[in-house]
Amino acid sequence: MSSNTPATNRQWILRQRPAGMIKENDFECVEVPVRAPDPGEFLVRNLYFAFEPAMRGWLNDVKSYMPPVGLGEVMRASTVGEVIASQHEGFPVGTLVSGMLGWQEYATIDDSAGPMGAARPLPPGVDPVLSLSALGGTGMTAYFGMMDIGKPKDGDVVLVSGAAGATGSVAGQIAKINGAAKVVGIAGGETKCKWLTEHAGFDAAIDYKAAGDDPNFLRDRLREECPGGINLFFDNVGGDVLDAALLNMAENGRIVLCGGISAYNEDELPPGPRNYMQLVIRRCTMQGFILIDHFHRAGEAVRELSKWIEQGQLVHAEDIQEGFENTPKTFLRLFSGANLGKQLLKVAERSHGGTS
Amino acid sequence: MSSNTPATNRQWILRQRPAGMIKENDFECVEVPVRAPDPGEFLVRNLYFAFEPAMRGWLNDVKSYMPPVGLGEVMRASTVGEVIASQHEGFPVGTLVSGMLGWQEYATIDDSAGPMGAARPLPPGVDPVLSLSALGGTGMTAYFGMMDIGKPKDGDVVLVSGAAGATGSVAGQIAKINGAAKVVGIAGGETKCKWLTEHAGFDAAIDYKAAGDDPNFLRDRLREECPGGINLFFDNVGGDVLDAALLNMAENGRIVLCGGISAYNEDELPPGPRNYMQLVIRRCTMQGFILIDHFHRAGEAVRELSKWIEQGQLVHAEDIQEGFENTPKTFLRLFSGANLGKQLLKVAERSHGGTS
Repeated sequence: MSSNTPATNRQWILRQRPAGMIKENDFECVEVPVRAPDPGEFLVRNLYFAFEPAMRGWLNDVKSYMPPVGLGEVMRASTVGEVIASQHEGFPVGTLVSGMLGWQEYATIDDSAGPMGAARPLPPGVDPVLSLSALGGTGMTAYFGMMDIGKPKDGDVVLVSGAAGATGSVAGQIAKINGAAKVVGIAGGETKCKWLTEHAGFDAAIDYKAAGDDPNFLRDRLREECPGGINLFFDNVGGDVLDAALLNMAENGRIVLCGGISAYNEDELPPGPRNYMQLVIRRCTMQGFILIDHFHRAGEAVRELSKWIEQGQLVHAEDIQEGFENTPKTFLRLFSGANLGKQLLKVAERSHGGTS
Repeated sequence: MSSNTPATNRQWILRQRPAGMIKENDFECVEVPVRAPDPGEFLVRNLYFAFEPAMRGWLNDVKSYMPPVGLGEVMRASTVGEVIASQHEGFPVGTLVSGMLGWQEYATIDDSAGPMGAARPLPPGVDPVLSLSALGGTGMTAYFGMMDIGKPKDGDVVLVSGAAGATGSVAGQIAKINGAAKVVGIAGGETKCKWLTEHAGFDAAIDYKAAGDDPNFLRDRLREECPGGINLFFDNVGGDVLDAALLNMAENGRIVLCGGISAYNEDELPPGPRNYMQLVIRRCTMQGFILIDHFHRAGEAVRELSKWIEQGQLVHAEDIQEGFENTPKTFLRLFSGANLGKQLLKVAERSHGGTS
């Protein structure tokens, strides 16, 4: 047992299943004793929590690609932490690790796999923040969704919804790097739209909040920006955004379904895309995917993404909030669209040196 | 000018654009003089009209893959006819031709292309009825939709909706011929379901009319018939049928969108498939197609389909009504689900010999 073991671990647990939009009090902060590591185990202090729209789905009591988070269980989340006590040779004190350690200050674990794999040491030199954003699940989702499902071709007109979000912003840039003639982003608000065109290399940005009372705003703006039709649509939003895009697809266009944040907080499933028969009329393909199917090629994705970042071709952004007590509040930022880039929360300072 | 030219041509023209479900009086029967063929032209007497659900879409004043039928214009339709007067060497009197000659008794035409190509002589020995059903656009739609879009694999569990219809019944059999382990059809009524399993080689049939008040009937029956999930769904119906199938897709399943007859007569587009996010969760692909993109390979399709029919592997069915005056009434049969197999109308006897 190490003298580094603190006495108390704060955890955010799921208190009740949310009805509709999540509320802060769907979660509850509890204190439990920290368990010192047994042989083969190590104790991690979390430094950063990462937030993704898909986490909303884990709160519903329905079968999906992962089991739901149970009532009373620590909320599942990707984190980066630092080993502060260890009885495992492969994870000495000071090691930075990433894994699904959840919304808690400390975790006593071994190297066995959880629902999304075991905690892994960060490769030397990798920034903990980047490992949760452009080089983490978010960046990999954009990479595989664009390269394997969307397959941008030279000259493509590409549309990305949720474009100022962590995945969307990377996805649009990947399309541009791989030959797209024009990349258009949909985002909420002037600040995000400016960032897309001035920093993230998008050719145009459409501010969906400028629609006012015009139900055809998005359909018409897409027609202006993509008069020849959209060849590839990377959709993170669903709902009305998907419907407007369906009316503007080019023949043989591809729609990559990455997510549908517009419906994640609905009590009942809202109606689906009214215009889906445009898939027939325009001979389009709509395909969904899940990152975990592609994890075995994570190395390739991180190599390519790192190269593009180093070469200045790929810009990334993080919205870093602070303080463990702000965890549910920070999660809510995703659904109000408050974040530009990857939503993170810093919950502790690194104690054994390094850059975090 | 030939002595064979009759005086009067009856035509069914579009009187008004239908509001919701089509009615017989959306069409009007008019009489016009028959024009004798000029040099390069020939006069065709229609023998059979073919009816397809997609024709409903041509009645709406919206841009689609074909222009809408204009008010006062003869209703567009595939027909088979016989040349009864000719000033064109390639189309002597007695030639059987197929083409989009519309709902009229006679057509004076040349060999130039209309919106779906020119009228073509039937290949020698081809039955006029078959040329409008299993060896016509209907069979080709099933062929390309299944072989090029759906791509059945050995061991696939395949679902077909509208399975007792002209396209669905052929599509299901093509899947079976090409390695599907189990083919399940959805159809309305016991007669159709019996025909599917006893004559058309389907492994199981689900009678959607047996649902009664149970909104989960189809979802549950699909779960029973396809406990390991549906690998390939060939959808002609859309709406609730598509929603129920989405909840039963296997991972990496494919959905071929051939049509969506459930919504063709709705005034406003009904809500789309509520469960479309299952495409993400189950990593599925949904793809639409249109036959006209594949016409250049019509020869291949007809060869393969003919071979399967000759070998007794492919059963086809036609519902042949009679009488020109019954044209709109026969069209309505499609939308009440009255037809088993291809809906045809015989409007004249062949006068120069042959089998029709």
